[in-house]
Amino acid sequence: MPELRQDPLSQRWIIISTERAKRPQDFKLKPVESHSGDCVFCAGNEDKTPPEIWSYRSPGTDKDQAGWWVRTVPNKFPALGIEGQLNESVTGLHKTLNGVGAHEVIIETPKHQVEFFHHPAQQIEEIIRMWRDRHLDLRRDHRLKYVLVFKNEGQEAGASLEHAHSQLIALPLLPKAVEEEIKGIKRHLEATNRCIFCDLVYQEQHDQTRVVAESESMLAFCPYASRFPFETWIVPKRHEPDFGLIWENEIRDLGSILRQVFVKFSQALGSPPYNLLLHSTPVNTDIGVSYHWHIEILPRLTKAAGFEFGTDYFINPTPPEIAAESLKRYH
Amino acid sequence: MPELRQDPLSQRWIIISTERAKRPQDFKLKPVESHSGDCVFCAGNEDKTPPEIWSYRSPGTDKDQAGWWVRTVPNKFPALGIEGQLNESVTGLHKTLNGVGAHEVIIETPKHQVEFFHHPAQQIEEIIRMWRDRHLDLRRDHRLKYVLVFKNEGQEAGASLEHAHSQLIALPLLPKAVEEEIKGIKRHLEATNRCIFCDLVYQEQHDQTRVVAESESMLAFCPYASRFPFETWIVPKRHEPDFGLIWENEIRDLGSILRQVFVKFSQALGSPPYNLLLHSTPVNTDIGVSYHWHIEILPRLTKAAGFEFGTDYFINPTPPEIAAESLKRYH
Repeated sequence: MPELRQDPLSQRWIIISTERAKRPQDFKLKPVESHSGDCVFCAGNEDKTPPEIWSYRSPGTDKDQAGWWVRTVPNKFPALGIEGQLNESVTGLHKTLNGVGAHEVIIETPKHQVEFFHHPAQQIEEIIRMWRDRHLDLRRDHRLKYVLVFKNEGQEAGASLEHAHSQLIALPLLPKAVEEEIKGIKRHLEATNRCIFCDLVYQEQHDQTRVVAESESMLAFCPYASRFPFETWIVPKRHEPDFGLIWENEIRDLGSILRQVFVKFSQALGSPPYNLLLHSTPVNTDIGVSYHWHIEILPRLTKAAGFEFGTDYFINPTPPEIAAESLKRYH
Repeated sequence: MPELRQDPLSQRWIIISTERAKRPQDFKLKPVESHSGDCVFCAGNEDKTPPEIWSYRSPGTDKDQAGWWVRTVPNKFPALGIEGQLNESVTGLHKTLNGVGAHEVIIETPKHQVEFFHHPAQQIEEIIRMWRDRHLDLRRDHRLKYVLVFKNEGQEAGASLEHAHSQLIALPLLPKAVEEEIKGIKRHLEATNRCIFCDLVYQEQHDQTRVVAESESMLAFCPYASRFPFETWIVPKRHEPDFGLIWENEIRDLGSILRQVFVKFSQALGSPPYNLLLHSTPVNTDIGVSYHWHIEILPRLTKAAGFEFGTDYFINPTPPEIAAESLKRYH
């Protein structure tokens, strides 16, 4: 079972793989798996993944057979395992939790395909519904406190398989990044009695210099203090802490704006590597009741290096106003 | 002048380049500059860098001429500029400081050379003295609150020039990463009345499973909650917040242990890309009087991806006990 170890200084938790530990010889850099014939995520190769957890499929087709259009399976090399009790142990300064959690892969399409924006609109909506359904299912496990949906595309962004997929990791504790957002949300709430994300949407809508795309229920913009060049956030206009409670019209709008953003990335930047994160409120706790769910897309055109790891600050060579202006041009 | 922008949620500061802003077409990936003939850091090419700030050179040789063995110059493309007043402005949710600070390059050798461990022992000591001397000089500017020395080696670790060099960025505010360390130090101090780094050194020395190398005044070990495979910290045994006050015997020991660690990296991992950070106490402030300076070396064999940026936690496939065991074998 993996271990969760806490750094006594920053209180950051680190997931340490203890069973399939990588030794020096295991670090030969592998290219992204690209030959579609052998792809374990393609329809017809269902027996090459662990048994599926959930899928959207044609009536009359069987589990772990073709006939699906979105399919969720356990990660074959999970960062955390779903079995066991959540036990804590301490040795001197060193605190450990056993690595209870979930690590799932959402296969976004049965055909071998790479780019998110090549999905038809309806397919993107189905992917979003799968993200929501897995969110709602996993929180029934009361050991879990947070569900993170994310997507790594391109080798520079940490992808190891080419076939379009997203991932989900459910954690038994709150991510530090989310704890900090919650602190910021509380700070603003106490000062103004308002939601900082609602205020951000309002300010960016009126300023317009950082807006990338807008629809009835969603705003996409490059945040003022973007960590990465062309970093883009998608924030729903309706105040809702919980992505699990997304409305049907919002799913359609989110699908459409996600597609637009990736078309723009492709045209302006030639399909850069990126990470996408879906931040929702923590689950099975009342921390974060004033949260506001949102998506962050981080193109990986620069490298986090000594300065970034030494300070936790970032150097961004592209002002978000210039990024938004470039992205807005494309449709 | 660059801008420092603060994210209203995490309160993280981001350095945004406003003058030499990178547009989409500027993001074609460039290989690390490697042809030694044209290298701007080689002796004889002193006119290709901005005028030097400080150098160790043979008596009778002139500034910006050959004859030096370690040379510090301003970064040609500085993240922060040394001129101007430190002004803050606020527009709605968006807070900005003008980007006052310093960004220097320490050229570690006059010959074209890549690997740190190829430096003779005496040369490494001179590099450490240069880090110290720049530290002591920059803090005389009372606008500055933090001096970070770091080193990026290899393209994966953000290096853009091959010739062995380190960098220094001085900031008008405390890095978030250091603020968090200080919080952890205070937490431990209040609970135990002891320094957490001193306790860490003691615990690792007695446990031995994560120790990589040891000398009279220094301990090198893989931290219990390592973020990266083969992450290695070097901590001085004498409690001293301020790297600027390093003793002569410590400079010799640090040089020798740094060299050992990089020889081990080279033999176990084939000279991996890495970032090195030198963390010292903040300057021109009394925050951090109980700090304990140290060096963190982060080999970049894995990619920080969606999980890491979405949580600020890390997945590390190599337990530090296995990393230390592998590194210990080599001399």
